[in-house]
Amino acid sequence: DIRIRFRHILFSVIALVILISIATIGFMNIEELSFFDAFYLTIISLMTVGYGDIVPESEAGKQFALLLIPIGAAIVTYALGAVASYFIEHQLSVKVWNK
Amino acid sequence: DIRIRFRHILFSVIALVILISIATIGFMNIEELSFFDAFYLTIISLMTVGYGDIVPESEAGKQFALLLIPIGAAIVTYALGAVASYFIEHQLSVKVWNK
Amino acid sequence: DIRIRFRHILFSVIALVILISIATIGFMNIEELSFFDAFYLTIISLMTVGYGDIVPESEAGKQFALLLIPIGAAIVTYALGAVASYFIEHQLSVKVWNK
Amino acid sequence: DIRIRFRHILFSVIALVILISIATIGFMNIEELSFFDAFYLTIISLMTVGYGDIVPESEAGKQFALLLIPIGAAIVTYALGAVASYFIEHQLSVKVWNK
Ligand SMILES: [K+]
Ligand SMILES: [K+]
Repeated sequence: DIRIRFRHILFSVIALVILISIATIGFMNIEELSFFDAFYLTIISLMTVGYGDIVPESEAGKQFALLLIPIGAAIVTYALGAVASYFIEHQLSVKVWNK
Repeated sequence: DIRIRFRHILFSVIALVILISIATIGFMNIEELSFFDAFYLTIISLMTVGYGDIVPESEAGKQFALLLIPIGAAIVTYALGAVASYFIEHQLSVKVWNK
Repeated sequence: DIRIRFRHILFSVIALVILISIATIGFMNIEELSFFDAFYLTIISLMTVGYGDIVPESEAGKQFALLLIPIGAAIVTYALGAVASYFIEHQLSVKVWNK
Repeated sequence: DIRIRFRHILFSVIALVILISIATIGFMNIEELSFFDAFYLTIISLMTVGYGDIVPESEAGKQFALLLIPIGAAIVTYALGAVASYFIEHQLSVKVWNK
């Protein structure tokens, strides 16, 4: 059902927003980064790009990153899968509707 | 249907070409990179390799990267899934045809 | 069946714990890293973030990383897929139950 | 069919071996790297880890990497999906057999 897919996307977007907020605030406090640098480190880490220009320096910051990255990767994988499924089903439902 | 799969691939390839073009032109202007370096930064970022040899230096460039990477990752995930599905269905349809 | 999904998750979690343990002990001995740095290098490599702040320096350490990363990526892909499937089926089974 | 899955894995493994061979030889010649460093750069790039310790320095080497990484990522995605599907179907077929 396409409404289930939509709820999956909504659920994963809410989970991502909460995670990114916690991560940004966490890096601001633990690593004493500006809001923007903490947000940049969060997104570059969660998307597994890892440029290496801004990295967690302290052991506490590294521990925080190690907690954050697997949770974030799971949610991102889930979200990307949900978005892909939604578009595939949406296209199918439009096709069936047109018949 | 295999033609639906093919249209999915075509759609994601067109979306990728547009995104890569915008990203390359964007990095050329915001980060004052050469065409090739901007293109290199775009692909290394979208594929989430992130070598770190060329990175966005300005805050505007970093903001541009943060916008670009999630959109690109979604399209790449979608495109890779579409290509994989296409080959699996193609092989199946060849098998059924041969029976 | 949702119990099969659950067993897939359990299997992949056990496989991950074993792999991470071997990798951490391996990097501690080959690269003479502390426990935490070896664990950090392991997770940052397996999640394909690759910040580049801690990398294998010796050829033996690099060979170890080359062995570790594809095995780990396969298990992580499998685990993330299993977790995603579990939640989707769980939600579906709850829905069917409520009818 | 589980034999189709097995052939998918076999196909993707052969494709990966050919790609890794071409990439290693290519980086040895273009970037004047040793066999091991070229192989290390290939795997670290294809798995999208991108530590940044060894990167393509010349424009020709960077162009080669840009060609290599999307092809490799497509094959790795396909291979990991095939391996995951194989194990899921294998487990299912064992279960059905035991009934
Ligand atoms: K990376
Ligand atoms: K990286």
